[in-house]
Amino acid sequence: MKKELIVFRHGHRIVRDYRVTSHCCLVARALGANRIIICGARDESVERSVADVNKRWGGQFGIEFIEDWKKELKELKKKKFKLVHLTMYGLPVQKVGKKLQKLGKIVAIIGSQKVEREIYELADFNVSVTQQPHSEIAALAVFLDRLQNGKELAKKFGGAKIRVVPSKKGKNVVNLK
Amino acid sequence: MKKELIVFRHGHRIVRDYRVTSHCCLVARALGANRIIICGARDESVERSVADVNKRWGGQFGIEFIEDWKKELKELKKKKFKLVHLTMYGLPVQKVGKKLQKLGKIVAIIGSQKVEREIYELADFNVSVTQQPHSEIAALAVFLDRLQNGKELAKKFGGAKIRVVPSKKGKNVVNLK
Repeated sequence: MKKELIVFRHGHRIVRDYRVTSHCCLVARALGANRIIICGARDESVERSVADVNKRWGGQFGIEFIEDWKKELKELKKKKFKLVHLTMYGLPVQKVGKKLQKLGKIVAIIGSQKVEREIYELADFNVSVTQQPHSEIAALAVFLDRLQNGKELAKKFGGAKIRVVPSKKGKNVVNLK
Repeated sequence: MKKELIVFRHGHRIVRDYRVTSHCCLVARALGANRIIICGARDESVERSVADVNKRWGGQFGIEFIEDWKKELKELKKKKFKLVHLTMYGLPVQKVGKKLQKLGKIVAIIGSQKVEREIYELADFNVSVTQQPHSEIAALAVFLDRLQNGKELAKKFGGAKIRVVPSKKGKNVVNLK
């Protein structure tokens, strides 16, 4: 079954959040998500970063800014997506991960600052990557890796201009076009 | 065998890198590293963040700023640490991860901006988490998870004031003292 995998970034402030949100986008792309939806002020610098990476490194990873998180999440639920909210308060990923692997359409929700109580309620699953405070970028990465059982690590990106050939030392980059 | 696990963050600029470096510290702590060494300007705000998390959430995660990365890495090698440099140009983590699990003393090196060629040479292993550009925070998280085979996800932190009890919905935090 082909998965449909969306990352939902809840909260973005222009300038202040540029780097962390960019990391979220690139991690979502590199680790197998189809697109990211960002709830917050539209930030063209983030859009440009993603477009630039797609152009050079391939694939068709999508990015979209929206304003109304509640409306968006409810619409995704109507389209049969299961909402998985990553939070240190949720059930351990090592316990629920296998179950989630069976789902076909998933939205992985990651917060920035404080997340409204209603997100916990709307979510089909609240899932934790440790019960310690750390980073939504790290939580997303571990979750995506476990959700796809490592398959995402070898994902191919079509239409790339450049590609890395893994090497023991140094950098080996191949120009494809 | 008890592992000794250090994260080495190569590069930190005050203010500009505060959030990303803080994420690195908290991810290192939450995912089982003993301490982090940061090469760059000493940043008391990062030290305070780590101290605050240790105090509330427990454990004795260490943080240290140093100036001379070359000297430090060479000293760690003399102390029998193996240096694992995380880079998109290295060998895939899914191929070398099992081998690295056997090591007892590991330094996981993560860069910020551009990393000197000499780091690739000094490293015992250059390891990639995908061959795509993304985030050193995410690469560190996936690497630590695979290195410890998920055991780190249930790590206990002694002397904590508060602890999360995982729950399906909402937040369940217990005060311990």
